[in-house]
Amino acid sequence: MSAERLAVLTEGLFDDYHAKTAHGVIRYGTRDVAAVVDSTQAGRTAAEVVPFCQKPVPIVATIAEAVERGANTLLIGVAPTGGQLDASWRALVLEAIDRGLDVEAGLHTILADDPEFSSAAEHHGVKLRDLRLVPADLGVPRGPDARRPGVRVVHSVGSDVAIGKKAVTVELDAAARARGINSVYVPTGQTGVAIAGWGIAVDHVLADYVAGAAERLVDEGSERGELLFVEGQGSLFHPAYSAVTLGLLHGSSPDLLVLAHRAGATHFSGYPDVAIPALPDLIKAYEGITRPLRPARVAAVALNTSGIASDDEARVAIAEVQEETGLPVDDLVRFGANRVLDAVLTAFERPD
Amino acid sequence: MSAERLAVLTEGLFDDYHAKTAHGVIRYGTRDVAAVVDSTQAGRTAAEVVPFCQKPVPIVATIAEAVERGANTLLIGVAPTGGQLDASWRALVLEAIDRGLDVEAGLHTILADDPEFSSAAEHHGVKLRDLRLVPADLGVPRGPDARRPGVRVVHSVGSDVAIGKKAVTVELDAAARARGINSVYVPTGQTGVAIAGWGIAVDHVLADYVAGAAERLVDEGSERGELLFVEGQGSLFHPAYSAVTLGLLHGSSPDLLVLAHRAGATHFSGYPDVAIPALPDLIKAYEGITRPLRPARVAAVALNTSGIASDDEARVAIAEVQEETGLPVDDLVRFGANRVLDAVLTAFERPD
Repeated sequence: MSAERLAVLTEGLFDDYHAKTAHGVIRYGTRDVAAVVDSTQAGRTAAEVVPFCQKPVPIVATIAEAVERGANTLLIGVAPTGGQLDASWRALVLEAIDRGLDVEAGLHTILADDPEFSSAAEHHGVKLRDLRLVPADLGVPRGPDARRPGVRVVHSVGSDVAIGKKAVTVELDAAARARGINSVYVPTGQTGVAIAGWGIAVDHVLADYVAGAAERLVDEGSERGELLFVEGQGSLFHPAYSAVTLGLLHGSSPDLLVLAHRAGATHFSGYPDVAIPALPDLIKAYEGITRPLRPARVAAVALNTSGIASDDEARVAIAEVQEETGLPVDDLVRFGANRVLDAVLTAFERPD
Repeated sequence: MSAERLAVLTEGLFDDYHAKTAHGVIRYGTRDVAAVVDSTQAGRTAAEVVPFCQKPVPIVATIAEAVERGANTLLIGVAPTGGQLDASWRALVLEAIDRGLDVEAGLHTILADDPEFSSAAEHHGVKLRDLRLVPADLGVPRGPDARRPGVRVVHSVGSDVAIGKKAVTVELDAAARARGINSVYVPTGQTGVAIAGWGIAVDHVLADYVAGAAERLVDEGSERGELLFVEGQGSLFHPAYSAVTLGLLHGSSPDLLVLAHRAGATHFSGYPDVAIPALPDLIKAYEGITRPLRPARVAAVALNTSGIASDDEARVAIAEVQEETGLPVDDLVRFGANRVLDAVLTAFERPD
């Protein structure tokens, strides 16, 4: 993976919400990004168009220009509604293949199942990589104590979906690496897989194999480092997605948890009639559901304050949650990950 | 479905454990069974060969004889290791299609994906039904309060896998119907689907859609009756299968739970190092995990005493669990379902 240089294709959509895969890969990715391909924004940098994308990645108009800048892999950087590949993009994908680029996508349209793409890829000797495709040989896990000795696992769970569990996990990993710790971000969703260049989108696994997929991710993470930050999915009480949450929790078998929560959130996303439990109850529930397998305490709360305009008010919200839970609390995106990382590392020192 | 008459194919295996689908359908099925097809046991009845199969279903040597007895659907009654269709059985399946029978199977080999089977079926105008195939249009559930008013749901959860949750669920439904209650057994696994002739094998659903599949089963059950007994899968703390368990629990959104347990069991099946929590803790955990969505109490414990030789000793084991949990306890297969059914119906009368 180390030799990959990405051209991130967002043609016409780089400043749009649907380009979240592109934004995540530029902001958090560990792979080099040679260029964004978007003719409507060409000549600017990623950070000029989307401030969230802090890196000065150039935006170019064509795949040819991205290749000139050293790109060897085209990443489809958008997740369109429905997950289908837009018909107008077929020519761009074929052009990339013709120019010898590998192609990577997290679409429901499986690139390798497309006869035109697969025969072109074979002809040009390039790889088609479908980020949502899960390994064919998944099975049940070996069990909660099966992993390599010395490896420690921190799992980011949440009170709801879409509150920044991925960002929290990536920020913790980056802060740990900045301190010289041999840590790893373990991606469990398609955007995470695109960011890190490896992983499994566990929500696309057969229900019987979620825990097995989570254990495999820990095994693979253990080849890459010793402190694993495993991205969470869903929420333990989410009416639709709790199955994925629990399979990931039991299969990754963490030592510690970090609970992500959006400041002020009271009800589940998509289920306005279903209340999110009070944080102290939620913390007890997460700790209780891990106990018979491998007990894991919640070490800290990661509070998403993006809906609060001023830093001062965000600090008030953080202090309130700290009072409510008795745990260290911070917004890792707004104020940095060090405080929560300190809480995690301190928790490892304490006896249970 | 009412006009179906089954020929249950077990050729050479009727007295074998692998014929468990045949055994379940004969013992618990609501569809007529015209005959078992097994040339090695022909001339006897099902109950003579496998006492567990209490009905005097004739065993015949050929599909032709089953058709003479009115069979119009061939059910593959074995679940071979690996789930593949044995090559020597192809001719039997094709013969059934030639004779105008629909064919039903719970194999990993999908009948309809086999060009020879599907073209023969088209030619003869018969249906191929794959019990493991899940609906293509599954999605997320509407939520815990979305179901038809007046419908009540009882869900059989368990302390482990393979301890008789299906049998408990079927026995409760049969006992309720015997009392004139408009009840329904809601199947959630492939054998259950074969028994009832409808349902979804929820462990073969994508993890994101388990809860949605469970809600759909409740919707479909609500078309068939008012008191639904939803079969459980896995266990809340099973290292491999807890994802399926929780998705089914949250998606079916029960009013009451019945906890199945095997007398004397201390560790999880397949995970000899992982202890099953004490029953009072397990009951608290199941009740706690339902509370934020739709609170459900455990109304009774269904104790599997099949490993205990004498009825007297089984009664001692039952009394011990009753003492430990403070709940009504019985072995529904050994002593009948009435005691646990009474506990369920009484619990519906009590306020929470």
